[in-house]
This record gives sequence, structure tokens and C-alpha cells, in this order.
Amino acid sequence: MTIEYDGSAFAGWQKQRDKITVQEVLEQALTTALRQPTEVWGSGRTDAGVHAWGQVAHFDTTETLSELACGRLRESLNALVRPHPVTVRDITPTSDDFHARFSARQRTYLYLIQNTRFPPALDRNRVWWFPRPLDTDKMQEAANLLIGKHDFSTFRAAQCQAKSPLKTMDAINITRHNDRVEIRMSARSFLYHQVRNITGSLVYVGCGKWTVADFKRAFDACDRKQGGETAPAEGLYFVGVTY
Amino acid sequence: MTIEYDGSAFAGWQKQRDKITVQEVLEQALTTALRQPTEVWGSGRTDAGVHAWGQVAHFDTTETLSELACGRLRESLNALVRPHPVTVRDITPTSDDFHARFSARQRTYLYLIQNTRFPPALDRNRVWWFPRPLDTDKMQEAANLLIGKHDFSTFRAAQCQAKSPLKTMDAINITRHNDRVEIRMSARSFLYHQVRNITGSLVYVGCGKWTVADFKRAFDACDRKQGGETAPAEGLYFVGVTY
Repeated sequence: MTIEYDGSAFAGWQKQRDKITVQEVLEQALTTALRQPTEVWGSGRTDAGVHAWGQVAHFDTTETLSELACGRLRESLNALVRPHPVTVRDITPTSDDFHARFSARQRTYLYLIQNTRFPPALDRNRVWWFPRPLDTDKMQEAANLLIGKHDFSTFRAAQCQAKSPLKTMDAINITRHNDRVEIRMSARSFLYHQVRNITGSLVYVGCGKWTVADFKRAFDACDRKQGGETAPAEGLYFVGVTY
Repeated sequence: MTIEYDGSAFAGWQKQRDKITVQEVLEQALTTALRQPTEVWGSGRTDAGVHAWGQVAHFDTTETLSELACGRLRESLNALVRPHPVTVRDITPTSDDFHARFSARQRTYLYLIQNTRFPPALDRNRVWWFPRPLDTDKMQEAANLLIGKHDFSTFRAAQCQAKSPLKTMDAINITRHNDRVEIRMSARSFLYHQVRNITGSLVYVGCGKWTVADFKRAFDACDRKQGGETAPAEGLYFVGVTY
């Protein structure tokens, strides 16, 4: 399943007691639609407030689902989840050994910044509002230092459960469309808060609080305390997964 | 002032008893910031649910506002209106004879349609969800019939207070960006519900319920009862005004 959601309405992806989460809303809908208890496995967890255009999740069922049946199931699910701002964009049958999380080869995130003097109205909860001017060329220059395999400890949250801080960053592209700055990152997998922590430090460079050399020094230190602030959840979008 | 707002949070632009409207929120903020009762005149009213990127409004004040003072006033206003999803993008001093409504030479509206089988999640309340395929070439062909000065009675709501149904349509452009259909219309002024009524009929053509000839027949009839349905408010954006 490919899933889109407005993160501002959820306490994140993963099931939690007494909180509304995307995983739980989907499991309840699937359990109703398929008339059997069904678990949903996401390609990655997103925090409270983080959005998704293309989260991917799988479920196992004893029913054989044709393409047509998948289309009908999507329609049932979207009717069942209706009160919540989540939508199943697509359902496709897959092989038994497919796993949304472990089969993933690349994940892409997008971080949106509204770079205006005035706060957002239509995009409230959908962007990080940053009112000081941002130099995206400088930000790209700093971002280029992260491409390849590195120790990303400087951008790793204390609560991160990964065994190693080594990750391979495939691409970071920073573009500006009028007042909006877009930061797009792709990697096989990310550390906890890695995108938001990198974004926070890139913005230090963009607004002149740091030089590119400062950014490099912080990155090389492999120490979270040397990194910039964590960018807020509301600007982050889980764009998609490649398998 | 140039004003952006999320129409889903308001009972429209115009002040109404016991309802939250954009005009009232702005008047209260201006009255507080300028320490004098201040009225706000919009370039046009928008209905409940209709959004704006570039609504324009003026106010009169006995204070002389420099460019710098305008910047500070914008910041005060945006702090004061904060709980509501409205933002003052810009404030500029203007001449005494300027009137946001009567000095307008052209208004532009944008209508957004999400043309997918699945409903919107992130864009809930921001687009009209239309799941059947739309042929935008056919829609553009029908739209071209409306360019110029015509009797727009077919697309005029019964409650419209304009003296005449004659209006001049400057431009209608229909474009598709992946799953999104955008309809952009410009005219000096519009009849009540004119954009939403035209959109409803264009969608009849796009989905094959009407031919372009059916559309022409309905338009030529100068009779609202011959027109298609009114497109919902949530897809409509007041983009801007030229003076």
C-alpha cells in the first residue's frame, strides 16, 4: 500500500496506547474490510507532525487479492478511514518475501521551508516558517559534504536505536521556488531525526549563523552537541520508497 | 494589504454576527494595533471555505505610515491574528483615492481539482476531489467560448446582487500537473458564484457528461437552470488583484 497522510492529525506512524496513529487507523480499517485481524508493517516510522505523500506499508492476508480486488479494497479502506486525514493511494499484490521495511532500497524525504517575513496561513503545519533570508547555494555547498558513507553522529538523536551511526547519503538537493526552499534527501535508511537535524544545521549555514567550514567542523566532530537545532516536524514529508 | 487565508476556518470574508470572518479578525487586529476603530475594505467577498493567496484590502488611518512603519504594523497584525489561519503578506501606503474594491482592474481566481481515484489527505479542504478522468483539452475548448463580453446568466447564482449579468472574461487557462487540474480565470469582476458555476460546467465537459456543444447551448441559454452544478468552495483560491 502507498499511503498519504497529514501528520498534524496523528501522534506519528507507530501504534501507541490512547493515541491516534496512522498504523492503528489502517489496521482497524483493514481488520474490518478483510474480516480478519490484520497487522500493517510500514517502511519507516514517522514522528508526530511529520507528513507522508508516499509511505509504503504491507500486510499479510489469507485472501487472494486480484488487481480488481485491490482497487475495491482501497475504496473500502478510504471510506473506513475517512474521519482521519489519511488516504490509501494504491494497493498492489506483491510476493510473499516482500517486507515494506526490510526490502527498501532507498527512501526519500522532502523538507519544506517557507522563507518569508510573514507566517504561513494556508500552509500552517505544512512548512517550517523561517523569516530570515536563506542562501541556498551555501546550503547546497554544505549538503554536498554529506554525500556518501559517513558517521552521522552529529545528526543522530539521542533516542536513536540504530546499531551504527554509519549511513550512506545518496543525494541532497536544495532548490528554491519563490519563497519556498525545498530540501530533498535520499538514502537507503536514515538515523532517528537525521533529516530534521541535518536541515537545522543547513539552515544555520543558509542564514549566515555558520560558515560551510563551521558545518564541516560540526559534522566531522561526530557529536550531536556540535550540531545545529532540530528542524520542526511540520516541514517534513516522507515522499517515497524504492524497492 | 495583501492577505492570505485558509477559507476552511472562516465563515467567509464579510462580517457576520456570531461568526468568525476574515474581515472581522483583521478589523479587530487593526483596531488594537492602531489604537483607533478601523474598518477594512476588501477587493471582493469570498464565501465560507474559499481560500485566498492574494486578497487585497485597504483601511484609512489618521497615522502617517512610512514603509518601515508598514513592516512593523504587519508584524503586529500577524501576531494579533495568530490563532486564526490568516496572514498579512504585505502592507503598502497608497493614495487617498485608492479603493480596494472600486480601483480594481482585474481579479484572478484559481480552482484546484484533485483528479485521482483516492481522496485527498494532505489537501483535504484545499481541493475539489473529482475521481473520474477529466479531459482538460475539451475543458479548455469549452472555456474558450467564454472569453470576451457575454451575458453570464447561466453561471450566476440566484442571490447575485450585480445589476447586470454582462461580464468580460479576460482569460481562462486550464492546465494539468500530474493528478491536479488547475483552472485559472481573470476578469475585471465576477458575478456571485461565477467561477464555481463555470467550473462545475467545465467539469461536466471534462468527464464526458456534456459535449462542448452542450456547454455552448447551456451558456447561450442565459439561464442558470441550464448550467451544471456549482463546484464546492474548498477548491477555490482568490489569487490576486491588479490595480
